[in-house]
Amino acid sequence: MKTLKIGLLGLGNVGTGTYEILAMNAAKISALTGCEIVISKVLVSNINKKRSLNLPADLLTENAADILSDPEIDIVVELIGGIHPAFDYMLTALQNKKHVVTANKAVIATLGDELMSAAAASNVLLKYEASVAGGIPILNALSTALAGNEFDEIVGIINGTTNYILTQMTDFGLNYDDVLKDAQAKGFAEADPSSDVEGEDVAYKLSILIQTAFGLKIPPLSIPREGITKVSKDDIAYASQFGYKIKLLATAKKNGSTLECHVQPALIPVSHPLASVSNEFNALFIKGNAVDDLMFYGKGAGSMPTGSAIVGDIIDIARKLDCLPCCLTPQISAPTKLIFAGEGKSMYYINFLVADVPGVLGKVSTIFGDHGISIESVMQRSKGKSEGEDVPVIYILHESSRQQLDPALAEISSYPFIKEVRSILRVEPLN
Amino acid sequence: MKTLKIGLLGLGNVGTGTYEILAMNAAKISALTGCEIVISKVLVSNINKKRSLNLPADLLTENAADILSDPEIDIVVELIGGIHPAFDYMLTALQNKKHVVTANKAVIATLGDELMSAAAASNVLLKYEASVAGGIPILNALSTALAGNEFDEIVGIINGTTNYILTQMTDFGLNYDDVLKDAQAKGFAEADPSSDVEGEDVAYKLSILIQTAFGLKIPPLSIPREGITKVSKDDIAYASQFGYKIKLLATAKKNGSTLECHVQPALIPVSHPLASVSNEFNALFIKGNAVDDLMFYGKGAGSMPTGSAIVGDIIDIARKLDCLPCCLTPQISAPTKLIFAGEGKSMYYINFLVADVPGVLGKVSTIFGDHGISIESVMQRSKGKSEGEDVPVIYILHESSRQQLDPALAEISSYPFIKEVRSILRVEPLN
Repeated sequence: MKTLKIGLLGLGNVGTGTYEILAMNAAKISALTGCEIVISKVLVSNINKKRSLNLPADLLTENAADILSDPEIDIVVELIGGIHPAFDYMLTALQNKKHVVTANKAVIATLGDELMSAAAASNVLLKYEASVAGGIPILNALSTALAGNEFDEIVGIINGTTNYILTQMTDFGLNYDDVLKDAQAKGFAEADPSSDVEGEDVAYKLSILIQTAFGLKIPPLSIPREGITKVSKDDIAYASQFGYKIKLLATAKKNGSTLECHVQPALIPVSHPLASVSNEFNALFIKGNAVDDLMFYGKGAGSMPTGSAIVGDIIDIARKLDCLPCCLTPQISAPTKLIFAGEGKSMYYINFLVADVPGVLGKVSTIFGDHGISIESVMQRSKGKSEGEDVPVIYILHESSRQQLDPALAEISSYPFIKEVRSILRVEPLN
Repeated sequence: MKTLKIGLLGLGNVGTGTYEILAMNAAKISALTGCEIVISKVLVSNINKKRSLNLPADLLTENAADILSDPEIDIVVELIGGIHPAFDYMLTALQNKKHVVTANKAVIATLGDELMSAAAASNVLLKYEASVAGGIPILNALSTALAGNEFDEIVGIINGTTNYILTQMTDFGLNYDDVLKDAQAKGFAEADPSSDVEGEDVAYKLSILIQTAFGLKIPPLSIPREGITKVSKDDIAYASQFGYKIKLLATAKKNGSTLECHVQPALIPVSHPLASVSNEFNALFIKGNAVDDLMFYGKGAGSMPTGSAIVGDIIDIARKLDCLPCCLTPQISAPTKLIFAGEGKSMYYINFLVADVPGVLGKVSTIFGDHGISIESVMQRSKGKSEGEDVPVIYILHESSRQQLDPALAEISSYPFIKEVRSILRVEPLN
């Protein structure tokens, strides 16, 4: 049996998972690929560090060139993360005619084109299923079995940390700050959680999804994004009373010839399958013009689920090894003529803090109407407030654009009875 | 651009959908495959029949040989259904070195081996994504992106007709017979619904899933199966009071060295993602030893969703056309050493009708205990019954085997106060 040699860059969480899966399922993987798959070298920053995996000392190296320049290594698996030196290592590997498998969303979303060109020039494969939604095989599905569809919409919950925080806030009526602290203590959130909670991590993944599904390249950090740091437990409670849950959504939807996309906390109906995606789970809801509604649900992070995606990519390369370059199917979809757009029209949830004086509801509602915005529901809660204390008023508005909404809110805010516009959240009817 | 010619066998529901998708998404499909894909001949039983599609008359034929023997046709898409002549047509097509795409679960589940051998001998591809769960790309996922996993469990809701009936019974408290009549009137159920409601359709699909995920061939009709005809609205209501929904489940799970599999209505916790799969939707819940829990959700039938799977298979073949036979990746998983087993241990739901006399609960509970079966919950409902009228008693039992359970039920039934054992249903904790 042929031996296929892998050089692993990084032996953290996912690197360890990948190593363990290749060992645990070796018999099946060999039967499927006709290859014995061997990790022949592992790049680490300190070869003397104590690790959970008990590896032979000569397997480890602190020198990337030991992998990138080893002519015997067929596949380089990059699991260092970050842009540099991960990008540079991958580029060198591809130029040296090694296939590359990576989980690196930041590099693929920002510098993926350069790597793809290098892969094409060398007749090797570049695969990155693990870069989006961990163990959920979404990129593969979009680019193979579902490729006969034009996609109308992708809506995803693709960050486990924020979904865990929002789920805990929702289920136990807790504050953002308290849940974050608890999540950090449990290792579910990073010490510096900003990339997760500010939506940057999701924007990288959404950019890769958009390129795969729509063939459109959008710089990830140009995607309008808002994190979950301003979502309050009150908003979650009010949303619940209207029949909604608040989730951090990655959204890309076709709107005529434009593609609307954004990363935002939004209200979704409790009856929608996405609403039941809790804690660290991820899910992607897709609408194709042939297949209609589909949802994929699973673990979006973790050493073994992400390792599953890495190993799936390794198997794909192993199966194609004997028939390259004819098997170089690009993972990217056909380019479309869509134009990138930011936020389109939407229903909105608005949380005002108002003075408890007569006529407020009438005035605010009239101003919305003057701006052509209709009201779907309104709720004023004075219960538990003392006489004269400010009270929350919640509006759910029918579809409008921010161009319509913002002047209306500015006019409303000019009245002294409006103490604060506390939240503006999209409502995704997802019908 | 190269032209790839397709011969379509059958122009019913799915044939029409396939035709429409290839036309609607032609630009994208050409860009992805580098081929213009053309349906060059369509086999129908009557070329003069009025159809929704307005096809040129010379495209239609009543003679299968016009397709099977046409040297210009590259791919034969079989959408006739049933075993014969569908199997014979596919065999001839493969022997004539044509790739075959089919939605035919009955042929693949029972005679798939013969077709695969014929495909291998001719260096062509045989693909059948559409045969299981319509638009949900489950076979592709199991055999490609998830192939690095050993699978522990697959539990599916893979028949839309029965799921529609059970959903309507659950949501509106209706009887089976009434919902079935309504479903037939709406075209959601066949005039002869037996293959759906007796679980045969599900058994075919489960057999294909087992072969794909576990590499184990099980004759579909040897899989223990039970339909939904005996599920009563009372059982659904009692199950709901214990926190469960009743769904028709296709189950395959590893149990040491055996594979337990069956098709049965079963109780699943309302909080499990499968419980929210309603009406005509299908879903597959999978546990892999690396990826952990995954769920795929979507439309399991219908002309466009099933056509999506057919077109996905056509695209896969088109992409590999230039590099056969080296790209002949088998869709079947590596063989495993699992042994086919029927029902394993399970929790059970038992619905007794008993005489309203003192001591019944004590006696029944004691007999279960004598047989080593513990009781998880019990509920007796006398409300609304007249004095002396028989009453239902519902038990939820902890894990036992049928070898334990059946003698216990026989002993219990020998007492005159037991009027009837009305239901024995599995409870799937799905944890």
